[in-house]
Amino acid sequence: MRPIISLISDFGLREYFVGAMKGAILSINPDLDIIDISHQVSSHDILEAAFTLRCAYSAFPPRTIHLVVVDPGVGSKRRPLIVATENYYFVGPDNGVFSLIYESESVGRVISITAEHYFRRPVSQTFHGRDVFGPVAAWLSRGIEMAKFGEEIKDYVKLTPPKLKKTADRVVQGMVLHIDKFGNLITNIAATEMEKIGRPGKFTVGGKEVPRVVNNYAEGNPGEPFAVIGSAGFYEIGVQKNSAAKLMQVQRGAEVLVHLA
Amino acid sequence: MRPIISLISDFGLREYFVGAMKGAILSINPDLDIIDISHQVSSHDILEAAFTLRCAYSAFPPRTIHLVVVDPGVGSKRRPLIVATENYYFVGPDNGVFSLIYESESVGRVISITAEHYFRRPVSQTFHGRDVFGPVAAWLSRGIEMAKFGEEIKDYVKLTPPKLKKTADRVVQGMVLHIDKFGNLITNIAATEMEKIGRPGKFTVGGKEVPRVVNNYAEGNPGEPFAVIGSAGFYEIGVQKNSAAKLMQVQRGAEVLVHLA
Amino acid sequence: MRPIISLISDFGLREYFVGAMKGAILSINPDLDIIDISHQVSSHDILEAAFTLRCAYSAFPPRTIHLVVVDPGVGSKRRPLIVATENYYFVGPDNGVFSLIYESESVGRVISITAEHYFRRPVSQTFHGRDVFGPVAAWLSRGIEMAKFGEEIKDYVKLTPPKLKKTADRVVQGMVLHIDKFGNLITNIAATEMEKIGRPGKFTVGGKEVPRVVNNYAEGNPGEPFAVIGSAGFYEIGVQKNSAAKLMQVQRGAEVLVHLA
Repeated sequence: MRPIISLISDFGLREYFVGAMKGAILSINPDLDIIDISHQVSSHDILEAAFTLRCAYSAFPPRTIHLVVVDPGVGSKRRPLIVATENYYFVGPDNGVFSLIYESESVGRVISITAEHYFRRPVSQTFHGRDVFGPVAAWLSRGIEMAKFGEEIKDYVKLTPPKLKKTADRVVQGMVLHIDKFGNLITNIAATEMEKIGRPGKFTVGGKEVPRVVNNYAEGNPGEPFAVIGSAGFYEIGVQKNSAAKLMQVQRGAEVLVHLA
Repeated sequence: MRPIISLISDFGLREYFVGAMKGAILSINPDLDIIDISHQVSSHDILEAAFTLRCAYSAFPPRTIHLVVVDPGVGSKRRPLIVATENYYFVGPDNGVFSLIYESESVGRVISITAEHYFRRPVSQTFHGRDVFGPVAAWLSRGIEMAKFGEEIKDYVKLTPPKLKKTADRVVQGMVLHIDKFGNLITNIAATEMEKIGRPGKFTVGGKEVPRVVNNYAEGNPGEPFAVIGSAGFYEIGVQKNSAAKLMQVQRGAEVLVHLA
Repeated sequence: MRPIISLISDFGLREYFVGAMKGAILSINPDLDIIDISHQVSSHDILEAAFTLRCAYSAFPPRTIHLVVVDPGVGSKRRPLIVATENYYFVGPDNGVFSLIYESESVGRVISITAEHYFRRPVSQTFHGRDVFGPVAAWLSRGIEMAKFGEEIKDYVKLTPPKLKKTADRVVQGMVLHIDKFGNLITNIAATEMEKIGRPGKFTVGGKEVPRVVNNYAEGNPGEPFAVIGSAGFYEIGVQKNSAAKLMQVQRGAEVLVHLA
């Protein structure tokens, strides 16, 4: 079986960046499979990358190396990391992009990469996906031991994702974390967390009422927004075969209120 | 030789959907090649997916598994299908997405998938690309017999694509089926069908005249729209190194009239 | 090790074009890896494709076949080419798309492809990526000798990319060649060329002043444009975590003046 490296970046698909990073990886290990998750993370948006990774990583086979390059601090002193968990490796900058992994996975060692002989030379000041992160992931896929890349650290950066609040009696307050390609409004309300609090009755999102909670998109009534547990385990607001974002005129970051049943 | 799974969806490339579906496939069979055809089918647009599949599938090697997930009915009772033809397998929802395949290929068995032990568990209500269709395609690529996935059916959904009409003497009426990235207007007029009717003289599209039929884009006159047989076998309207859609202000669905020579 | 074919085109990712081209390649050689560099080159933009290729090709392993299909002359008499350099093969139309390769690589043989038995049949008039270039690259990856594809030529098309001018005493004049996904303004001023002329002090781009030259994006001051040597070796204008193009209201093609220190 060939090793697998998955990719998340904010490089976009028009530029030469993704191709060059893949070329650099294949120059070190041509005998692997590279799988794109997304290269259309909003520029410099660390939380969006963290969310994308959180939703996708666990569908991959054990030992997959997840490479995440959303790296607004490229060229500065921010550390490059390898994170090992029970099932996966993660490679990327120490800027919080792995914050949601630290919560969902049992984290083993975290290595601050310093062994420059694993980098592509010369190392540019502006493109560490090609020169640092890609090469390190490629050497890792060839079986180089983690300890050879640098020292173990404990003080890696953890961003605090927005938490749920129980604002008033029987009302839980969250937010719209992401709007997906279909116009669904993905909230920060995990179904597993909601279960501990109570059963959701109706939602209010950006001041607009969402009258029903359904089991799937097909159960919705035409033109009427509904709440549903989405595929990554978060409640989301949708409209059957339509865009909830457009119909409701709601933006990312909007307030979500859950009125308990 | 590794098996090949091709992908068509309306997932877009920004979300985690495509990555998670690929991860789920590779978790079942890591030793295959996954080839993207398009993930930018318009949301919920079954006919566009059917058209994309129709144009691309036959370029692939025999035994390729074509996986199509444009699935507005996800979570409802619509059946998941495997379609076997002489040369290919097709996996996707029974919503008409294979309508053009039923016309162009010699269809063997069509199986309604019911064997849930081939699904990813738990099966979400909203993402069967990852939980049902991807895993079934992966198991199929490992050589599991079709009959093991469910019962053969005959009443699968066939959408009727828009047909040509011969409206008046020596005029054939069709429509603009698709506008491609270059602004070419792809019609529903197959060259093979046109041959049976007569030789096209000039075209009128959305009320605007297309004076010439040419053999290739380079034969066009600068700034003047022309008709040409496109790469998928349909007549299309183009303008040399320019967008016919922009220049002619024509939308998808516009009427196409062919005046026979 | 499997052979590698990289792809650059202006096909976009929505259409069936890329998928069909890959299918045609795999039908000839299923045992290779296809790596996308970009399919979002602006339609018919030969110089943009040349630039993308120039930035990405050298990151790939030796013997990679770089396939470039930006081909506004498809169907005309423009020749299909194979270019061999010391380390790579290049396949594409003879329209200047390899102009920057002819400058940066030591060019060996250039073959005008005429051996039609290596084409997909029938050859369409409008899609040589699928019918000519893809198949030729696939046969090449199977080890077919270059000489079998056609005759060697010397008069291949070379476009002259915009050159630097030293307009007045101690001022170098260039232009904005490309605006990348982050809004960085990539100039045609190669760091290696600049070294021969002098040390850049400040830049003026589209009439607006860029006061500082920095080593990396992180060294910039918030909201202030700076010049930096980008990852492909050209000076570029950026703004920390922001879009220089938007902030400065500068377009592709804008004049760049470098005032020597």
